[in-house]
Amino acid sequence: MADTTLISLDAMGGDHGPSVVVGGIKHYLAQWGGEGVRFQLHGDETAIRAEMARCNLTETECEIQHADKVVAMDEKPAQAMRRGKGSSMWNAIDAVKSGAAQAAVSAGNTGALMAISKLLLRMAAAGLERPAIVASWPTTRGYTAVLDVGANIGSDAKQLIEFAIMGEAFQAAVHGVLNPKVGLLNIGSEDVKGHEELREAHAILRSGSLPLNYFGFVEGNDIPKGTVDVIVTDGFTGNVALKTAEGTARFISTLLKEALTSGPMAKLGAVIAMPALKRMAGRIDPNTVNGGPLLGLNGIVVKSHGGASAQGFANAIRVAVDLSRSDYSAKVGANLARLSSVVEPSS
Amino acid sequence: MADTTLISLDAMGGDHGPSVVVGGIKHYLAQWGGEGVRFQLHGDETAIRAEMARCNLTETECEIQHADKVVAMDEKPAQAMRRGKGSSMWNAIDAVKSGAAQAAVSAGNTGALMAISKLLLRMAAAGLERPAIVASWPTTRGYTAVLDVGANIGSDAKQLIEFAIMGEAFQAAVHGVLNPKVGLLNIGSEDVKGHEELREAHAILRSGSLPLNYFGFVEGNDIPKGTVDVIVTDGFTGNVALKTAEGTARFISTLLKEALTSGPMAKLGAVIAMPALKRMAGRIDPNTVNGGPLLGLNGIVVKSHGGASAQGFANAIRVAVDLSRSDYSAKVGANLARLSSVVEPSS
Repeated sequence: MADTTLISLDAMGGDHGPSVVVGGIKHYLAQWGGEGVRFQLHGDETAIRAEMARCNLTETECEIQHADKVVAMDEKPAQAMRRGKGSSMWNAIDAVKSGAAQAAVSAGNTGALMAISKLLLRMAAAGLERPAIVASWPTTRGYTAVLDVGANIGSDAKQLIEFAIMGEAFQAAVHGVLNPKVGLLNIGSEDVKGHEELREAHAILRSGSLPLNYFGFVEGNDIPKGTVDVIVTDGFTGNVALKTAEGTARFISTLLKEALTSGPMAKLGAVIAMPALKRMAGRIDPNTVNGGPLLGLNGIVVKSHGGASAQGFANAIRVAVDLSRSDYSAKVGANLARLSSVVEPSS
Repeated sequence: MADTTLISLDAMGGDHGPSVVVGGIKHYLAQWGGEGVRFQLHGDETAIRAEMARCNLTETECEIQHADKVVAMDEKPAQAMRRGKGSSMWNAIDAVKSGAAQAAVSAGNTGALMAISKLLLRMAAAGLERPAIVASWPTTRGYTAVLDVGANIGSDAKQLIEFAIMGEAFQAAVHGVLNPKVGLLNIGSEDVKGHEELREAHAILRSGSLPLNYFGFVEGNDIPKGTVDVIVTDGFTGNVALKTAEGTARFISTLLKEALTSGPMAKLGAVIAMPALKRMAGRIDPNTVNGGPLLGLNGIVVKSHGGASAQGFANAIRVAVDLSRSDYSAKVGANLARLSSVVEPSS
């Protein structure tokens, strides 16, 4: 592998396409320097060139791979798999498959990205239906990695442990947490009826047969509290929890805006306290935690929010660079191999 | 049945015992008048009398039924069932069983309350493991009833529809919503693998064979948005969602306090805007939505938060009075009977 890290970008994905993707490179380079990092931009060459000129970027930092086709934001995953070949998204992932790029980033259609990534890169762990998506959840202590928040529904014990292995390596690689504490999401420490897979995963993780710093069961309120560094759950529960938290944050911010514009005194107070309120809002801005890798694939693919800003996209690029430069893949590979000696493979 | 509504109260339950329970009666009478409502207080007679004197309450409003025993807040449900007979909680529920009281309210140990209620009153719906708990969730439009947030894990289609029937009648009786819209919690409108019970319930609810205003699938962010009036989910997912939302609200309020004390200007702004901020905090204060009935029993039992204030306990009393005076029980009974002609009974 070359000393340069090449990151392939789907320049056409997301709500804003090349302006946010190329703008994201500019923000990334300004903030993190980007020594030894180059970018391969997939998409409409004319549009990309125009954005590069606007951002003062040259072929030194970016190479362009023209693609005619774009996967639409509302395209069904099955359709995207059949018709997506030659699209900017497909080609960005294909560059990871061929080994040319070390990671791909796309702000495009999530279902299509999962389907095409799985098709081209294949799952690294037997039994995983689809890539697990990890969310970096802001907490009072920093960030907790929560997975799966994607679409692996009804995970068995082995899959939950795979999530633990992948989430632990992600947390170490991207958030720099040494020996992260891992918790299993449950609804109490006892009296768990019907969720045998949770108790089974709990027993294996507690047994110490895998090199993980296992904390035990945690509950919903432990996520924003930062009780542990990694929280493992099935994709259904994780997705509901994430969307409920996002909705709650939006609800409270609506109430806060209403309160702070409800009269002249409230407005005056708000103006005076505004710099402090803005700093606070930055801590829970989705752009600051943008960039959710699709874990469990033979290769690194990072999903950016479709509506991310250029700053948000820069964060997704950072996640891709950090993952590809860390021992993430080797660590996960070794632990998954070890896992198969601990449990039966899932069907 | 007499014209008077008798509400039996576990005077010893919760973190504060008689002071909050008797104080709650005082708040209830001050706010809602309480015409035709009387209270039966179960617990230590001396302590109750002292609180009644403090609150200027007499035998006109309250009768006392002395009980020596108290179910401890950390007592295991099985223990409470074996040893709880004669306790204030047990006797409060027993008064509903005997028909003396129309509803019971307790701020005591949730697990014990569910176990004793189920033992004494029995489940009204076959297949329900335990009473479903409904949360009145504050939203931008008012309150959404979310159930089950308790402990029925892995609910089948029939149980989910029972939750829909009970939640719909609760929302009409307690929040006065006519023909409430009912949604099923899911992680998207399509591509649902592994959750057959959700799709099965969806098909039956959509078929129109039950008199419910069915909206369709909703997602986590729809809960605080108030997209529908009733949201149905299994007890595992509902509990995780509720605790995640509570944790998120606490996290944001911590950040807000930090921001508003971070410097002299921020503090000044906070002081000026304080009345508006306090009104806002009231809207998401757990005390304003206190009182979660245990649904699915042959009788009305309302759970108050253990840490509720007297004002919060008054809200739980209001829920109990509203439910017992409404057509809730008749409506649920009729719809459950109708349900058995639509689906096979669950095992």
